[in-house]
Amino acid sequence: MDSSNDKYAMQKKMLAGEPYIGMDPYLSQLRKEAQEKVAALAKVRHEPEQYAKAIQELLGSVGDDKAIIESPVFFDYGINTHVGKQFYMNSMCVILDCARVDIGDSVMFGPSVQLYTAEHPTDPAERLTGYESAKPIKIGNNVWVGGGAIIMGGITIGNGVTIGAGAVVTKDVPDNVVVVGNPARIVKHV
Amino acid sequence: MDSSNDKYAMQKKMLAGEPYIGMDPYLSQLRKEAQEKVAALAKVRHEPEQYAKAIQELLGSVGDDKAIIESPVFFDYGINTHVGKQFYMNSMCVILDCARVDIGDSVMFGPSVQLYTAEHPTDPAERLTGYESAKPIKIGNNVWVGGGAIIMGGITIGNGVTIGAGAVVTKDVPDNVVVVGNPARIVKHV
Amino acid sequence: MDSSNDKYAMQKKMLAGEPYIGMDPYLSQLRKEAQEKVAALAKVRHEPEQYAKAIQELLGSVGDDKAIIESPVFFDYGINTHVGKQFYMNSMCVILDCARVDIGDSVMFGPSVQLYTAEHPTDPAERLTGYESAKPIKIGNNVWVGGGAIIMGGITIGNGVTIGAGAVVTKDVPDNVVVVGNPARIVKHV
Repeated sequence: MDSSNDKYAMQKKMLAGEPYIGMDPYLSQLRKEAQEKVAALAKVRHEPEQYAKAIQELLGSVGDDKAIIESPVFFDYGINTHVGKQFYMNSMCVILDCARVDIGDSVMFGPSVQLYTAEHPTDPAERLTGYESAKPIKIGNNVWVGGGAIIMGGITIGNGVTIGAGAVVTKDVPDNVVVVGNPARIVKHV
Repeated sequence: MDSSNDKYAMQKKMLAGEPYIGMDPYLSQLRKEAQEKVAALAKVRHEPEQYAKAIQELLGSVGDDKAIIESPVFFDYGINTHVGKQFYMNSMCVILDCARVDIGDSVMFGPSVQLYTAEHPTDPAERLTGYESAKPIKIGNNVWVGGGAIIMGGITIGNGVTIGAGAVVTKDVPDNVVVVGNPARIVKHV
Repeated sequence: MDSSNDKYAMQKKMLAGEPYIGMDPYLSQLRKEAQEKVAALAKVRHEPEQYAKAIQELLGSVGDDKAIIESPVFFDYGINTHVGKQFYMNSMCVILDCARVDIGDSVMFGPSVQLYTAEHPTDPAERLTGYESAKPIKIGNNVWVGGGAIIMGGITIGNGVTIGAGAVVTKDVPDNVVVVGNPARIVKHV
């Protein structure tokens, strides 16, 4: 099959962790749809049934009908993000879910949390080609991500973790620890 | 009195610094009202009289009719935040005023400043109970909080202080100093 | 000419790097216009022709009709920002373009990037006068500014640079390097 005739070709590459062109028409269409769903979500914030449905529309999957995502919020795709039960995301978070984002049960995000699965080449010549690539982010159960924290692509965060406010997480985080700082380092085992 | 019959019971605990349930119906109602007031504020940004009134509605108290709060902005409650004269808050700030936030005269916030009075237990088992607690934030007179700075619950900031852009303030700050970094440290006495 | 009769007096001082009063009526008017243009931009995000026109209206100059600026976004003036070809700015960025902001070709901003040309005096007594001042920011060609990064006034960033997510850039950055951290430091030559 000639991938140039496959409208999903870039989406497949993106989700497979291969270099892809973000400005691809189908990916652009999906991002547009995510923006529309995010706008729709904000409008029904205080209508519980419609709100639960709007979150189901936005995300790839959600563990129950109790999830809360405060506005304004930005998702690249939404459909690549999967959250467990009792999910809470405070205002002004940004989720670049080009690769899959998996979030466990009882996870709370403070405000302005940033999840960046996508990255551009740091080699300037490569970067000019327009290709980027994305790596999944995985967050365990019962995790509190403090406000303003940034989590990079490829990172796995264990169960029972606290990410301090303003931390920049550039390495995997094991179970039951507190990490803080830029770059984030373990300061406590719990 | 049986606190289970007191609709204000959780609000009282929250303001007293005791563990409380954020998803309490009355607290949820107050947060909804704050979101409505914030939306109303944005609509009258360039109508000086209505704007001053909208800020009075939003905040617990305000020292004059010259306060400016650029949109988008997020307050958990608004009514727990008290600002002095000549207050200026730039765009995309987030104020989690679960405990009282006291701000003096002539204070300026850059964009994306974050005040987080509330915190969840770092012990994962405790966190699962849903209880959180909040500590007040106090900011003196003539303080400039640089853009993107984060100030944690329980912090007192003196008079004449500059908080550098992107600083994460985890300790009290005395009068007449400049602090920068994550975590913030004093770099200059003025 | 008596500058007190010149409605542009403060704008001239601001752009010349001299102390100025931000609350000046003409500067306030320009900031109001920027907010209106930003609101108009958000409404035509998916109408390519109107969108390109809305970006031309907002910015001082733009190198082609392919620039993208995701909403929400905040510019102080917009007209003091000049971008080259193939410019991309992700969601929730804040550009305080009191001084001139010059951005080269093929520059990408992640989400929540902050450019702060303006600063207040760190001396508390001076700060009370209401005077502030602004220094230009210059970003070369083929630069990737990672999400949540903060760039201070007076900074020049070379060509081929990567600014890491969450970096706070307080010093000039030469060509072809990667910088990370708060404050940002060089970690790689490319």
